[in-house]
Amino acid sequence: MPIDDPTVKAEVEAAFARYEAALVGNDVPTLEALFHDDPRTIRYGGGENLYGMDAIRAFRRSRSAEGLARDLTGTVITTYGRDCAVAMTLFTRPTAPDRIGRQSQTWVRFPDGWKVVAAHVSVIDA
Amino acid sequence: MPIDDPTVKAEVEAAFARYEAALVGNDVPTLEALFHDDPRTIRYGGGENLYGMDAIRAFRRSRSAEGLARDLTGTVITTYGRDCAVAMTLFTRPTAPDRIGRQSQTWVRFPDGWKVVAAHVSVIDA
Repeated sequence: MPIDDPTVKAEVEAAFARYEAALVGNDVPTLEALFHDDPRTIRYGGGENLYGMDAIRAFRRSRSAEGLARDLTGTVITTYGRDCAVAMTLFTRPTAPDRIGRQSQTWVRFPDGWKVVAAHVSVIDA
Repeated sequence: MPIDDPTVKAEVEAAFARYEAALVGNDVPTLEALFHDDPRTIRYGGGENLYGMDAIRAFRRSRSAEGLARDLTGTVITTYGRDCAVAMTLFTRPTAPDRIGRQSQTWVRFPDGWKVVAAHVSVIDA
């Protein structure tokens, strides 16, 4: 299995960048489009455990658009074969300088593009 | 791409069960064998961010073997194609009944079997 095939990696990097821009911009339609629309898609968030795309959508549509800006560090995107990838990153927010966020995503290639099938976000003391 | 092919799913379920038994039994060699031995393997733990298998190994070998027992709930294992899978689970510990843990793992099939390439563990208020 080729790991980090350059072509595949560039695709996932582009999808990841699109997701990040949508997140800080609170572009909910794009955030939703980049998750796999399926009951098996799961997102463990900073304070909630969301099972299935319906739960993820409901959360996205109700959350505040304030304080979303963040800086990424330690971002590593690794692709396994042609259809599977992992994106791991740390993040900090200007509003919480003593805390460090961790975001992990598993991306899978579907006929309509790369989608997040699982995500996990948590925050710990820096 | 076949999702949850029964044969593939059974393989990952077996690997996941083996990992869980090793975790609560503090069977460090098995835990290490079930992670992909590679600098790109990443584990965000309850209070630490481990980049690369060397960092993961050092953490495993130094941690306490006390208080590892836990109960799993909300476990969902989903396979994407033949070589990629996600295992998501919540967990509680008898020693911390007001807290809920979340564990996510991305598993990839290698020539020597299924391995975790990325993991994220966090704990929030229940």
